[in-house]
Amino acid sequence: MVVAEMSVSLDGFGAGPAPSPEDPLGKGGMDLHEWVFRLAAWRGPHGLEGGEIDVDSELVEESQAAGAVVMGRKMFSSGTGPWEGDPNANGWWGDEPPFRKPVFVVTHHAREPLVLGETTFTFVTEGVEAAVDRAGGAAGATGVHVSGGADVIQQCIRAGLVDVLDLHVVPIFLGDGRRLLEGLDPARLEVERVIAAPRATHIRYRL
Amino acid sequence: MVVAEMSVSLDGFGAGPAPSPEDPLGKGGMDLHEWVFRLAAWRGPHGLEGGEIDVDSELVEESQAAGAVVMGRKMFSSGTGPWEGDPNANGWWGDEPPFRKPVFVVTHHAREPLVLGETTFTFVTEGVEAAVDRAGGAAGATGVHVSGGADVIQQCIRAGLVDVLDLHVVPIFLGDGRRLLEGLDPARLEVERVIAAPRATHIRYRL
Repeated sequence: MVVAEMSVSLDGFGAGPAPSPEDPLGKGGMDLHEWVFRLAAWRGPHGLEGGEIDVDSELVEESQAAGAVVMGRKMFSSGTGPWEGDPNANGWWGDEPPFRKPVFVVTHHAREPLVLGETTFTFVTEGVEAAVDRAGGAAGATGVHVSGGADVIQQCIRAGLVDVLDLHVVPIFLGDGRRLLEGLDPARLEVERVIAAPRATHIRYRL
Repeated sequence: MVVAEMSVSLDGFGAGPAPSPEDPLGKGGMDLHEWVFRLAAWRGPHGLEGGEIDVDSELVEESQAAGAVVMGRKMFSSGTGPWEGDPNANGWWGDEPPFRKPVFVVTHHAREPLVLGETTFTFVTEGVEAAVDRAGGAAGATGVHVSGGADVIQQCIRAGLVDVLDLHVVPIFLGDGRRLLEGLDPARLEVERVIAAPRATHIRYRL
């Protein structure tokens, strides 16, 4: 199973405008993830103690249960990061990335796999289908998690690769930025689950 | 209280692309309202018998309880309708419009009030604030319902006139069309209620 998951503002943005090295998710973009950052389920894998446990926690735990991750190049190492112009930079994730499973990065830049702590990043230059296929082989029955950004999620939806779309609709307007769902083909989806929480409405769609 | 309400596709469109006299809501736009059209609560006021009663019904009944309606000129009488070019056309709504309460139409075209059946349409050329103000006077304690389209809802949100935003998120991709929430100022909202149903996720936000 392939699950694409992302937080989105009520007005449809997956990141804010004007991303910069200091503000890589764009203006207001961090607010999309506040519902996660405060949770013990997120803090633990990031090497942080404490945190809250509530209805939002199980959403984070579910996405962590996938056996492999697919992400875009910017989510691995944004072109606007402090390593701008260095195609072999090690990205956002530090010496001990929180994934601890195989991660497949969709990129145009061929590169040897990168091992950081318990996470191996494999760089796939043949497009999203190849990335999801390789992730599926690594994940087996546990499923593949397409983590973003918006570009990769759109490409995966357009290619018919996504079984489940998990959206966390955050009650903010960003006003501008990167739209999460754009340029898709008309389609009907099935609402599989809705979990209401103050910081986000979690809706699971089956494509 | 001022409630703005609209159905929106999962990818954020309040109407489909290429509206025409035969397809005034644009390609796929009618699919946004399927959850309503089948209901007894909608069919009755439109002079139709029968229809379904389920969890979606109360949403329709709530919006019908408002004492006055504000709508845009296109919702009253679209420029792409069969009366294109006739600024004094009687619009979409036939001899017995379903509102049966005062309706205030935001328009650039000054015009005498129009009485059709039990509904009076008043044309307001001084903008959305004036329209909402006059609707508030007519509605009293029962509240004002801003019914669309996207332009008028956006104008009302930007002007700080909206207390409650009732969105019906329909599990379809339209791919293109008129975005419902566009060009808004950054803001935080409060999730007041979530009602999950197969044909739409009904989310009430307080601004």
